[in-house]
Amino acid sequence: MNYLSIDFGGTYIKYGVINEKEKVVYFNKVKTFSHCGPNFVLARLLDIIFKMISDFDVLAVSIAVASPVDPEKGILYNPPNLPGFEVFDLGKYIRERVPVPVFIDNDANLYALGEYFKGAGEGSKVMVALTLGTGVGGGIVFDGNLWYGAHGFGGELGHITIDPSGPLCNCGNRGCLEALASSTFLIGFVKRRLAEGEASLLASFRDSLTGEVIYNKAKEGDFLAKEAFRRLGKNLGIGLASIANIFDPDVIVVGGGLSGSREFFAEEMMEEFNRRALLSTKDFCKIKFSELGDLSAIWGGYFRIIQNIRR
Amino acid sequence: MNYLSIDFGGTYIKYGVINEKEKVVYFNKVKTFSHCGPNFVLARLLDIIFKMISDFDVLAVSIAVASPVDPEKGILYNPPNLPGFEVFDLGKYIRERVPVPVFIDNDANLYALGEYFKGAGEGSKVMVALTLGTGVGGGIVFDGNLWYGAHGFGGELGHITIDPSGPLCNCGNRGCLEALASSTFLIGFVKRRLAEGEASLLASFRDSLTGEVIYNKAKEGDFLAKEAFRRLGKNLGIGLASIANIFDPDVIVVGGGLSGSREFFAEEMMEEFNRRALLSTKDFCKIKFSELGDLSAIWGGYFRIIQNIRR
Repeated sequence: MNYLSIDFGGTYIKYGVINEKEKVVYFNKVKTFSHCGPNFVLARLLDIIFKMISDFDVLAVSIAVASPVDPEKGILYNPPNLPGFEVFDLGKYIRERVPVPVFIDNDANLYALGEYFKGAGEGSKVMVALTLGTGVGGGIVFDGNLWYGAHGFGGELGHITIDPSGPLCNCGNRGCLEALASSTFLIGFVKRRLAEGEASLLASFRDSLTGEVIYNKAKEGDFLAKEAFRRLGKNLGIGLASIANIFDPDVIVVGGGLSGSREFFAEEMMEEFNRRALLSTKDFCKIKFSELGDLSAIWGGYFRIIQNIRR
Repeated sequence: MNYLSIDFGGTYIKYGVINEKEKVVYFNKVKTFSHCGPNFVLARLLDIIFKMISDFDVLAVSIAVASPVDPEKGILYNPPNLPGFEVFDLGKYIRERVPVPVFIDNDANLYALGEYFKGAGEGSKVMVALTLGTGVGGGIVFDGNLWYGAHGFGGELGHITIDPSGPLCNCGNRGCLEALASSTFLIGFVKRRLAEGEASLLASFRDSLTGEVIYNKAKEGDFLAKEAFRRLGKNLGIGLASIANIFDPDVIVVGGGLSGSREFFAEEMMEEFNRRALLSTKDFCKIKFSELGDLSAIWGGYFRIIQNIRR
């Protein structure tokens, strides 16, 4: 008996098969080619599912999508990094074609669920998880359950206002955590400073800046690159303190691609967190980094299946 | 069969008796005289409880306290408006002396529970409630349950950072919602503007400013008083948008003493909320004002008893 868990992102489709003994028996990662549009991407997704169903005895499938999702039906709402999908009933589409139960959820939610049961949140009662990448995603888990809110859209921790006069966010708001603690923030910060004439190794990457380029230059000791990460750490610390005060969690788990650069922001993050969190929560709330890497949402999808099949 | 529900605040002790048909059969409100210290206040509290137990057939007692509370044991942690209590095991103290079950909780939590079952949150699945007064309290209710977090301190919505460089908050942080949407904010704002030389009816109240005074002058058309409320509305709107994005509630209920001044801040509050909340949450999340007034935490205490006795 095996379960197929897919992490369907804008850049990669990662997928793993986990057996009933909770062992990952297969894992792979392919490019999404999301710019080729929904028809191409959906065919790709179905290929993977059918290949896995024929190779393994797959009992159920979960799909973590980088999109606001109605977690009951599996409808996607305007995924920003999956162009052309707009409002799309992925649940219906997949269920009409695949002969086993299919569960669809937001990727940050399933990443959180994975970390709660198998990663940095293991053993906690209440856990909040943040993913830092192009944007900032969030998931909240209490007593093993995800917080969905009244309509399935809860946990948008990237859209807490951190600084009302801060930079514009993709959501249209100003100064969201997402606009202040993502690779988008790093790039914007560096561009602004370069435009102001600051000298930096990053000047020659002006038009091809990425989080990775900035990280690499920080490792080479570039001041501006390091400063961008320090600012990100401070902003993130403000967000973590608000999250701790609101939820009183045992653990906040910080993950996502950017968390690999923690050496350049962890100190400022903790400093600001300790400055701002309430005494009553600060002493109890640990800040940890994600432990599952590529597998976090894969594990989360597995637990999503197990929880729902048992019901 | 009756239940005694007490709302134990820094200024007033309000108490009500609710019968098994969910009818309020008695209500009263006396001054706390918290400046007289714990011994005096505790004797006063016990007097009320014994009087009610002898007059009515009281099956259980709930006490809503203006303090961080361990909701299982009933320990108070440094209630800011009950001087001398510091860390005090109110649960133990009352249970040793009172012969019926006693439940103790944070007042904002029980206010939220009351609004959820009997007030502006009636019929909702997920509700968040804010109280605006000297400070800002919060409570989160989902499927009839309060969000306590991992250690009982969850729901401190007054301590979300709204503006990292904003005014100092009582908690030591800068720019908390509490520092930007309370009567403390109104007073500080008016004082600063008066010190800058602004002309206002409030100038003669410089040393005796209260939320009520500012409200009264706003009603007389004073520009500075109205401006203070407008700023409060804008700040509150920022907080409400973060709360909506995080929780995806059906309703956010705004209550507390200051909510009576809504005519002077509701418009700016809604403007800022609509500017900042995500599309996915904004359309679903209603902002309502508290409907239960003095009785909200009294009702909440009743439901806290009922939920726990049924278990």
